Amino acid sequence: MEKNEILSHVDHTLLSVTAGWEEIRSIVDDGIKYGTASVCIPASYVARAAEYAGGRIPICTVIGFPNGYDTTAAKVFMAGDAVKNGADEIDMVVDLGCVKDGLYDLTLDEIKQVKLACGGKILKVIIECCRLTDEEKIALCRVVSESGADYIKTSTGFGGGGATSHDVELMREHCAPHVKIKAAGGIRSFEDAEMFLSLGADRLGTSSLVKLMKES
Amino acid sequence: MEKNEILSHVDHTLLSVTAGWEEIRSIVDDGIKYGTASVCIPASYVARAAEYAGGRIPICTVIGFPNGYDTTAAKVFMAGDAVKNGADEIDMVVDLGCVKDGLYDLTLDEIKQVKLACGGKILKVIIECCRLTDEEKIALCRVVSESGADYIKTSTGFGGGGATSHDVELMREHCAPHVKIKAAGGIRSFEDAEMFLSLGADRLGTSSLVKLMKES
Repeated sequence: MEKNEILSHVDHTLLSVTAGWEEIRSIVDDGIKYGTASVCIPASYVARAAEYAGGRIPICTVIGFPNGYDTTAAKVFMAGDAVKNGADEIDMVVDLGCVKDGLYDLTLDEIKQVKLACGGKILKVIIECCRLTDEEKIALCRVVSESGADYIKTSTGFGGGGATSHDVELMREHCAPHVKIKAAGGIRSFEDAEMFLSLGADRLGTSSLVKLMKES
Repeated sequence: MEKNEILSHVDHTLLSVTAGWEEIRSIVDDGIKYGTASVCIPASYVARAAEYAGGRIPICTVIGFPNGYDTTAAKVFMAGDAVKNGADEIDMVVDLGCVKDGLYDLTLDEIKQVKLACGGKILKVIIECCRLTDEEKIALCRVVSESGADYIKTSTGFGGGGATSHDVELMREHCAPHVKIKAAGGIRSFEDAEMFLSLGADRLGTSSLVKLMKES
C-alpha cells in the first residue's frame, strides 16, 4: 500500500493532557499537509481548531474519555456541545462498569442517544478491549452494530493496552458489515498500519505515521 | 492521631473504570461503617449510590476526569447533573493545556462557573501536580483561592504521580486560608495519612486505609 493511501485512513491524534494550542495547531497543519482522514484532539480545542482549519480537514474529538463512566446525560450533552463547536467526528467511550454487570441494554440505549446528539456526524464507539474478555467484546460488537454508530474502536490509548490483530479480527467477524473499525493505541509504523488495514480496519488512531513522514 | 480521626478525613475512593455495582455498593457500606468523610465514585453511579446510601454518607464524584480537557460547558453540565443525581461533593480537573498556555483567566472563569453549577455543594479542584512546575502550581493556588472553590486537590491518581509532601506544603503556603487541601494518589498507610494531615491536608483520597482496617 502507498503511504499516502495509508495516511488517508489515519485520525492524526494528540490527546496529551498538557498539549497547548501550538501543539494542537501543528497537528491540524500536519493533518492537512499529509492528507489524514481527520485530526483527533481534546474537546476543549474543537472550537478553535475548527475555526483555524476552516473546513480543510475534519475535526474529531473524544467524549466520556478515557474512563467512560460519565453519565449518559453528560455524554449526550458533550456530543451535542462538540458538534456545536465544529466537530465532524465523535469518539465516545462505553461505560465498562455496565459491561461488567452485563447491562448491555443500557449500553445500547446510551450509544443510540449519543448518536442522535451527533446530528448526522460520525460516531465511533471505544470499547477499551484491553479491559474486556472476548465474550464481552463480542457482545459489544452486537450492541454497536445495533446502535446506529458508525465505527467500533479498539482502545483509548490510556487503558494500558492498544490495538491488537486479534481484536480487529474479532471485531470484523462479529460486527455487522456496515460498522467500520478503528484501531488505536500503539500503532507506530507503516507496517503496523498496513496490517490493521488488511485485517479490516478502516481508520487508525495514531500520531506516529505523520511523525515518520516528517522525519523522512 | 487515632485511626478513627484519620478515617474521618478520607474520601473512600473507587474510580476503577471496570467497577461494577457490587464493588461500588461495598465502598458505600465500608465508608458508612468506618466513618469516612465521603465515598468518591464514578458519576455514572451517583444516582444509584445516593439512593442506596440514603443520606448515611456524603457522595463525592469526579467530572472532567481524569484528563481535564472537556469544555467548560461540559464541566458545568456535568456538575449540575451530578448534583441533580445526589452528589454532595464534586472533584473537577482543570484544563492543563490552559495552564501550559498561561491562560489562567480562563481557568478561573471555568472554576467559577462550575462552582455556581454545584449549587452550594462542595467543589474540589484537581490541579494534577505531577504534570506541573512549581511556578504553575503556585499560580493555580492563587486561581483556586480566588475562584470560590472549597478545596484544591493534588492528583487524579491517573496521571502517573500522586500526592507528595512537597506539593501539600506548597499548597498550604500559597492558597488562601479558606481553601482546604485534599491529598490524593498513592496514600497507602496511616503513617502517610497522618503526615499529609499534619502538613495541612484536610481530606485524603484513598481506598487503602479502609482496606487496612478491614484486614486488621
